Amino acid sequence: MTERQSRSPIEERRAHPRGSSGWQTALTAVAPNAIMVRGYHLDELMGRLPFADAVYLLLMGELPTRTIGRMLDAILVSVIDHGVTPPSTLAARNVAASGAPLKDSVAAGILAFGPYHGGDIETCMRFLDQGLSLVRSGRAVQDAAQSLVDDCLAESKTPPGFGHRLHSQDPRAPRLFQLAMELEIEGEHVRMLRAIERALTVRQEQFGRLLPANVDGAIGAIAADLGFSYELGNAIFLISRLPGLIAHAHEERQRHAPMRQIDPKDHVYDGSSERRLPEGRK
Amino acid sequence: MTERQSRSPIEERRAHPRGSSGWQTALTAVAPNAIMVRGYHLDELMGRLPFADAVYLLLMGELPTRTIGRMLDAILVSVIDHGVTPPSTLAARNVAASGAPLKDSVAAGILAFGPYHGGDIETCMRFLDQGLSLVRSGRAVQDAAQSLVDDCLAESKTPPGFGHRLHSQDPRAPRLFQLAMELEIEGEHVRMLRAIERALTVRQEQFGRLLPANVDGAIGAIAADLGFSYELGNAIFLISRLPGLIAHAHEERQRHAPMRQIDPKDHVYDGSSERRLPEGRK
Amino acid sequence: MTERQSRSPIEERRAHPRGSSGWQTALTAVAPNAIMVRGYHLDELMGRLPFADAVYLLLMGELPTRTIGRMLDAILVSVIDHGVTPPSTLAARNVAASGAPLKDSVAAGILAFGPYHGGDIETCMRFLDQGLSLVRSGRAVQDAAQSLVDDCLAESKTPPGFGHRLHSQDPRAPRLFQLAMELEIEGEHVRMLRAIERALTVRQEQFGRLLPANVDGAIGAIAADLGFSYELGNAIFLISRLPGLIAHAHEERQRHAPMRQIDPKDHVYDGSSERRLPEGRK
Amino acid sequence: MTERQSRSPIEERRAHPRGSSGWQTALTAVAPNAIMVRGYHLDELMGRLPFADAVYLLLMGELPTRTIGRMLDAILVSVIDHGVTPPSTLAARNVAASGAPLKDSVAAGILAFGPYHGGDIETCMRFLDQGLSLVRSGRAVQDAAQSLVDDCLAESKTPPGFGHRLHSQDPRAPRLFQLAMELEIEGEHVRMLRAIERALTVRQEQFGRLLPANVDGAIGAIAADLGFSYELGNAIFLISRLPGLIAHAHEERQRHAPMRQIDPKDHVYDGSSERRLPEGRK
Repeated sequence: MTERQSRSPIEERRAHPRGSSGWQTALTAVAPNAIMVRGYHLDELMGRLPFADAVYLLLMGELPTRTIGRMLDAILVSVIDHGVTPPSTLAARNVAASGAPLKDSVAAGILAFGPYHGGDIETCMRFLDQGLSLVRSGRAVQDAAQSLVDDCLAESKTPPGFGHRLHSQDPRAPRLFQLAMELEIEGEHVRMLRAIERALTVRQEQFGRLLPANVDGAIGAIAADLGFSYELGNAIFLISRLPGLIAHAHEERQRHAPMRQIDPKDHVYDGSSERRLPEGRK
Repeated sequence: MTERQSRSPIEERRAHPRGSSGWQTALTAVAPNAIMVRGYHLDELMGRLPFADAVYLLLMGELPTRTIGRMLDAILVSVIDHGVTPPSTLAARNVAASGAPLKDSVAAGILAFGPYHGGDIETCMRFLDQGLSLVRSGRAVQDAAQSLVDDCLAESKTPPGFGHRLHSQDPRAPRLFQLAMELEIEGEHVRMLRAIERALTVRQEQFGRLLPANVDGAIGAIAADLGFSYELGNAIFLISRLPGLIAHAHEERQRHAPMRQIDPKDHVYDGSSERRLPEGRK
Repeated sequence: MTERQSRSPIEERRAHPRGSSGWQTALTAVAPNAIMVRGYHLDELMGRLPFADAVYLLLMGELPTRTIGRMLDAILVSVIDHGVTPPSTLAARNVAASGAPLKDSVAAGILAFGPYHGGDIETCMRFLDQGLSLVRSGRAVQDAAQSLVDDCLAESKTPPGFGHRLHSQDPRAPRLFQLAMELEIEGEHVRMLRAIERALTVRQEQFGRLLPANVDGAIGAIAADLGFSYELGNAIFLISRLPGLIAHAHEERQRHAPMRQIDPKDHVYDGSSERRLPEGRK
Repeated sequence: MTERQSRSPIEERRAHPRGSSGWQTALTAVAPNAIMVRGYHLDELMGRLPFADAVYLLLMGELPTRTIGRMLDAILVSVIDHGVTPPSTLAARNVAASGAPLKDSVAAGILAFGPYHGGDIETCMRFLDQGLSLVRSGRAVQDAAQSLVDDCLAESKTPPGFGHRLHSQDPRAPRLFQLAMELEIEGEHVRMLRAIERALTVRQEQFGRLLPANVDGAIGAIAADLGFSYELGNAIFLISRLPGLIAHAHEERQRHAPMRQIDPKDHVYDGSSERRLPEGRK
């Protein structure tokens, strides 16, 4: 949390002067026949820690509790793919259409996670912290939320983390909130997000439509409550989305002609029809 | 398996002529307020399917069994990071040193997963399939393995998936084999790999050292037994490694001066000292 | 030429053992207040050497003659842009649509210079060298060309560097050949290319259409005659194409809405109408 | 100039509503057997327009005058390479060390043109425009410059475009200024830059050293005087630097072992010794 709130990267660097005997890293120690991630032997972690827990350990430095691990797992699943139309998917598919190797498609896709695509996680985290600093200085939560919303209205902008160009109710957001509640992980950022959602309902007419929290907003709020920095909050999106980029680049190479012109609107889904998880997996 | 063995991508494309009414995709269907991955509603999967299972579903089209899911989870953990010296990590750190955003570091890191770095998974899968086609045409497994090894010796090359520049015994490989055995997932590719390992022991003197299977070989064999295509076998490495690239780029930005000269050999580990998983996590 | 014909990169490395006192580079020496590219002070080159000549110096190690410099300049201009439909341009535009910075769009565009897009320069250079090695072993040039063409026919593939999906006569190729002739730069690779063109005319019926040399073929042949290696022949394409990627990414950011769906076929050109170079520039 | 000064990209987009019959592009029109860049036939430009002029035409929409073309040519040569130590070069070399293809190295290198590396061109352009807006509102040029410098001093930051971590006098900057003067291209941005240079001399003691304009500052000032937007000013750096990235990636692949550990400080230059341009090229 400290990292997110106070010191600039440059101050941070000043606070950590380099020793004279080499530059420092705290992530992974490698020696002949031994690899230790954050102090744990990698081969001990394998088969014992789910990938989501290992991600948390590597990024945050400590093992997550089981509930935090489950929450992160659900977040990773939540944005694993969003079909053929996002710019990241289209960048990956166009690179694949040139015959370039899979990793090149994936790298190009990652480059398309710009401010308008995935970037809302970080922007929303900052937005929620603005609201919380109003609360710190004495405002009631709902007042602070209303004030943030009215500022957005004055600047004719949609608050980051709310509304969706395709979904009037993004189905991933309520599921994440439900899990955060069940796992007792909700904190002040989620509460601020819900307060903003209520404030947006009050101003529904001025915005021209209801703006419920979207998946970026839900991830941003939960990641902030879990103590992720802005940069790492955003990084979760990269990790989650990678399999989707791979699947699209692979499908492009397997099923479509090289150098074809990809019209994102002119596609047909010919995959599995709708189905439900078997009883044993629920 | 078919995909890996028989048709070239171009034949594949010819075999799937495009309909006149749009281009086809079988991955994810998106409609207002609904996102279905391979037919399953994404919000139903969240909190119920570990990330590794969701990755398998997206890439392979069906839910994995629980044991396959656990195996894939262990594979994803196995190569999550390998310290500061691989070219991918150094590419990511050098991009971070320029002040570029995290995603740019990550994309550069992915571009460094070239033939000599991670590429051995795919090369080893092809190598094992060469051995298995000898078996199909009547050779005994150990004979086929010996023949592959002698071919490598004649060309003065190390067989793909064996030996390691740093580890005389890569600790990740035996752990993966142990899990494959416990989970009853071992198949003909793992058996071929073990046969090659034995053949290499016989030829130890000629190679100048023992060449036990490394983590790339173990992943390649197990992924092949799980039915992954060459390209997707390699893709698992990308997914696993992403959090490591993120962690290094983030650490570079937090702890080090911009534009510094990064000497990969001159580093000091100042992270957590060695520790064991708590009892409850074993 | 040697580099292209004989030694593998690995042999090359073996032939250049590293000294004990540091790794070697022969490109640019930098000292306080002095930058020397291939031995020349950079500030002496500025304003005296056209960019194309500086590119040749840096890549090839020596100053080009004036005619070689002019030829390279014409090659660089020849593929500076090809409108909105190539995969590289579309990858760059899709990344720009996410709000990502210009350099990210450009990097993604470069990743889309795959085998089917620009890669024909290198493939054609190799193809011409196949023909020339037939000539070395005693075949007449036109015989060798006919033999290459008949091999392509047997494999139902279009020879690399010939034909174009859009142009029945790529207007850039004859202009490059005209300049190569005027500047007296034509060599055996251009002659082989022209011989193949004639052989294709003979087989026009079997291929179903005329297949004149395209711009990739012309660049490949001329670059080979200038002594470029395969890899550097291909690299010229990257240098030439970069301004086009920049122009498209910049136009996308300036003129179009973020996150729009880019249909490559649905575009309208609203730029300058057709015009001719003023007399003074001819 | 307007583009740089007034409207945000979003306003720009609002000002250009899309027609109903397709999206608009003004760069290059392609028809069967014809390619027109900004209205000129590409094959007419080839051999008649130097690459630098074609770059200007593509990016700015009109042919440059001959003097502007010569100035841009000198700018492109000025940053074509800076040896092995910049992060971009190291990112490209590390990707090459993995065996990845040349274009992947180049893309990774471009990603390392972050705020601290090349980004000063844009930052300096904005800085000079701050000074010029003081002048518009009535301040004398030298007063405005002194005020900018004192603001930097108060924030303990080095003004963008001045000083160099290696060169006490960057040799490229005075050469660019000399050419700008000879070609009569100097305008208000160059004058403001020189005024800031004088103001820095006055404050030499407070800054601890002399801070003459560096090559980024010189390019920024001249590009602004030529009417380049911030984004395109920065883009010139990408175009210029590409051959350097290619040369380093190619040398890495030709001369060094795969997977080697690249220590940027431990290198030896073994290229051509110092030499001068032959008389005919001056």
